[in-house]
Amino acid sequence: MASISGLIGTLRLLLQSSFHRTVDRGSKGTEIKQTIKFSLKRMQSADVSGGENRFQVRKLEITDKSKGFIELLQQLSVCDSVSDKQFEERFLELSSYGDDHIVCVIEDDRSGKIIATGSIFIEKKFLRNCGKVGHIEDVVVDASARGMQLGKKIIKFLTDHAHAVGCYKAILDCSLDNKAFYEKCGLKQKGIHMTMYFV
Amino acid sequence: MASISGLIGTLRLLLQSSFHRTVDRGSKGTEIKQTIKFSLKRMQSADVSGGENRFQVRKLEITDKSKGFIELLQQLSVCDSVSDKQFEERFLELSSYGDDHIVCVIEDDRSGKIIATGSIFIEKKFLRNCGKVGHIEDVVVDASARGMQLGKKIIKFLTDHAHAVGCYKAILDCSLDNKAFYEKCGLKQKGIHMTMYFV
Repeated sequence: MASISGLIGTLRLLLQSSFHRTVDRGSKGTEIKQTIKFSLKRMQSADVSGGENRFQVRKLEITDKSKGFIELLQQLSVCDSVSDKQFEERFLELSSYGDDHIVCVIEDDRSGKIIATGSIFIEKKFLRNCGKVGHIEDVVVDASARGMQLGKKIIKFLTDHAHAVGCYKAILDCSLDNKAFYEKCGLKQKGIHMTMYFV
Repeated sequence: MASISGLIGTLRLLLQSSFHRTVDRGSKGTEIKQTIKFSLKRMQSADVSGGENRFQVRKLEITDKSKGFIELLQQLSVCDSVSDKQFEERFLELSSYGDDHIVCVIEDDRSGKIIATGSIFIEKKFLRNCGKVGHIEDVVVDASARGMQLGKKIIKFLTDHAHAVGCYKAILDCSLDNKAFYEKCGLKQKGIHMTMYFV
């Protein structure tokens, strides 16, 4: 389910690019036919692995700042430009928490850009037999990459992580507009979200 | 503001208890008058310091398990009995986070019982110029101590902490039933709260 839209996009790109290359090379009907046949074979292969591999979720790396990670966050909320030093310090601080704070990303390996992200940190309680809760934050998909189920992949990665480290639940806050999306990801509304701003 | 109802409750309790004790001891009009006068003096003193001191908010201590801390949490949610070892391990783990994870309590120094609690942990983001957010969790006041503004004192302690350590906001999730209480504490509804349970 997660890759259907992505695969349609991949197929479209492959078809366009193969056809254009063939036309550039020559105008013989047989050559075009052969090239399209070859492209279809490649597309079938992309169905199985290429499309999936293109949008792998992985942990944030220190080099991701230069791949548009901060610009992506700016599509979500207030996010002034962050200096390399600030980024490095925060990255190392979060890394020191190990599995207790994960930022994940999807990099489009064609453009080299970070096109989706989300984070989770693990709260340790006394409740629920000294249980743990995963708090999901800062989920955003690049405007150009929406409709390809990347948000769903991010949420699955984060909830799988929460489950794997022994949380009894994962939670997040969102606007009413995003309720339907998170319901498709398997979450349910439990209550309301309250805030107090200091700035 | 936080202590007005608490003080009214304290005054009422002092007046009732003094009056009953006087009636028990004797029926002379002068004696009752003198005792009430004495009680009023005590009440005025309680206004200034006694009432306030009785319900001080402080950080959780390792000895609070024996003062009913776990039983108090059981009034909030599922909280099986926790062994001393489990409690100690979790307490030390949370303590190691320093200001990044605080559990606060109110101990009634007359009964020696923990009658209110709440916690906050600090999330570190890339958003908002590598900003910080305080997440408030597990706020509960003992059923016998409600109506004395103890919940408000807990929230003030936790939001003050978030502000002091440089958070740009403090947030919490609650049921719609508790919205009015948190609004009185200065919070506003921002959105909805979603959950995924694993057990």
